[in-house]
Amino acid sequence: MNEKCSKCEKEAVKFVEWKKKYYCKEHFNQYFIGQVRKVFDMYKIPSDKKICVAISGGKDSVSMAYALSKFCKNLEAVHIDLGIGEYSRKSLGITEEICKNLGIKLNVIKLKEIGYTLPGLLQKKKMIPCKICGIVKRYLLNKFAYENNFEILATGQNMNDIAMHAINTIYSSYLIGLKNFKPFLPKDKEKTVALIRPLFFLSEDEIETFLRINGIPYLKEKCPYSEEAFSTKIKETLSILEKEKPGFLRKFVSSLIKLSDLVKIDIKTKSCKKCGFPSLNDVCSFCKIVK
Amino acid sequence: MNEKCSKCEKEAVKFVEWKKKYYCKEHFNQYFIGQVRKVFDMYKIPSDKKICVAISGGKDSVSMAYALSKFCKNLEAVHIDLGIGEYSRKSLGITEEICKNLGIKLNVIKLKEIGYTLPGLLQKKKMIPCKICGIVKRYLLNKFAYENNFEILATGQNMNDIAMHAINTIYSSYLIGLKNFKPFLPKDKEKTVALIRPLFFLSEDEIETFLRINGIPYLKEKCPYSEEAFSTKIKETLSILEKEKPGFLRKFVSSLIKLSDLVKIDIKTKSCKKCGFPSLNDVCSFCKIVK
Repeated sequence: MNEKCSKCEKEAVKFVEWKKKYYCKEHFNQYFIGQVRKVFDMYKIPSDKKICVAISGGKDSVSMAYALSKFCKNLEAVHIDLGIGEYSRKSLGITEEICKNLGIKLNVIKLKEIGYTLPGLLQKKKMIPCKICGIVKRYLLNKFAYENNFEILATGQNMNDIAMHAINTIYSSYLIGLKNFKPFLPKDKEKTVALIRPLFFLSEDEIETFLRINGIPYLKEKCPYSEEAFSTKIKETLSILEKEKPGFLRKFVSSLIKLSDLVKIDIKTKSCKKCGFPSLNDVCSFCKIVK
Repeated sequence: MNEKCSKCEKEAVKFVEWKKKYYCKEHFNQYFIGQVRKVFDMYKIPSDKKICVAISGGKDSVSMAYALSKFCKNLEAVHIDLGIGEYSRKSLGITEEICKNLGIKLNVIKLKEIGYTLPGLLQKKKMIPCKICGIVKRYLLNKFAYENNFEILATGQNMNDIAMHAINTIYSSYLIGLKNFKPFLPKDKEKTVALIRPLFFLSEDEIETFLRINGIPYLKEKCPYSEEAFSTKIKETLSILEKEKPGFLRKFVSSLIKLSDLVKIDIKTKSCKKCGFPSLNDVCSFCKIVK
């Protein structure tokens, strides 16, 4: 890039389209961290809250951990080892390296130690791998954060993920889900913790830039079970719209926050009869999968 | 097409992807009219209601008029002559031909006769042409239908239009608009009539097939003011998703109907101080444009 930073005279490393600004490494980092802080400011979350950061080792969770470490004073990490052979070993390796670099305590939940592996569950259940994995991870992360007295669980969905999920949520007519399209969901049920999505206002492209310019290692490999699913196609089409109208995704996800407050559905949460954690049905999705 | 109709032995003219069925001309027509009737059945609308069909002469309104004429017993048409030179002359010509063929009385509102033309309004106002045109048409159609004691106004938005508008409505954060994504909107305000969208469950592709196989004339020309706008791009990307997953658009718009009921916003409608028709502000959008 031959341009100069819009804030100083240094060489620019990135053009942030929706801002119409060029940034050098230092000012891009400032912008990136600023977008993460914005979520904390929006919901007036003090930076000394006890936060559990879910790190898989992939680009989103790694960049989230780096950004949070810049201003959060009470962080710990949690990693779920899904037992997917070499892929899981690499994921854990990267996560350990990241946590060591950042000086954050790492907690590892090994699915194997509680009696399961993802490949094992997939053999038992005829479900889409990403769906099972999502249920298992959501359940174990909340359980860990709750049982270890964390106040907030931080997960790494980025802006592209959020927009894609919204289209998918409407498409699949799971409209109850629209209530959750927020960067921060306060604790609203027993046996849960509040949830924060620090990357809500950051795009995949910006996340990749952040990792690249700071030379941060992350797992580039795809999960062997990941499929070129319909979600990927939705993401691709949203990227076309973002390219056509820079700032589209940002306006779209910002509008989703407003929409989430307008959607009025009474959700009656029960306690799962097997594990006691919150569930929409008598038995929760996790217990149904592992039973 | 070398395939046979899935319902009879005749040659198929169309493969309806979401149904995974081939149809001959007769059975495709049956399917098409069936999808229009479905809207009437869903909302228990008797076929003898006094309906005003808005016909521009384009593919959507023309196919809608043909389909409605098959089972509605009390139809009249209305056409708005926007005063866009040759384009408007052709639009009116086609509309007259259609109404003559169908034996439907045609009412023509000439914008010029009430003192305006679209090109004239565009010179006065710095607004996107399609936006001004939309406001003018919606206002005049409702006014005409109301003052002439119609019970329902029928307009030709198809499934692709509806899905595109939903994305645009979220993107532009005009969430109040999400309440209107229904095939039928009962009269809920003074000085209005109920609104029906008979093509809610029909795609552009199916509409074109209907016109082609029945040799129905329609205006193929684009409005000289129409722009290759962002809406077109949204439509293109939605078509990519429909191609990837046939039935996507159908599930998406069906879900929008449910969503429209879940979105709770109190809309306070006033009466426009100038014309007395419903308005969200003291003066309605139409009066603001023509003042």
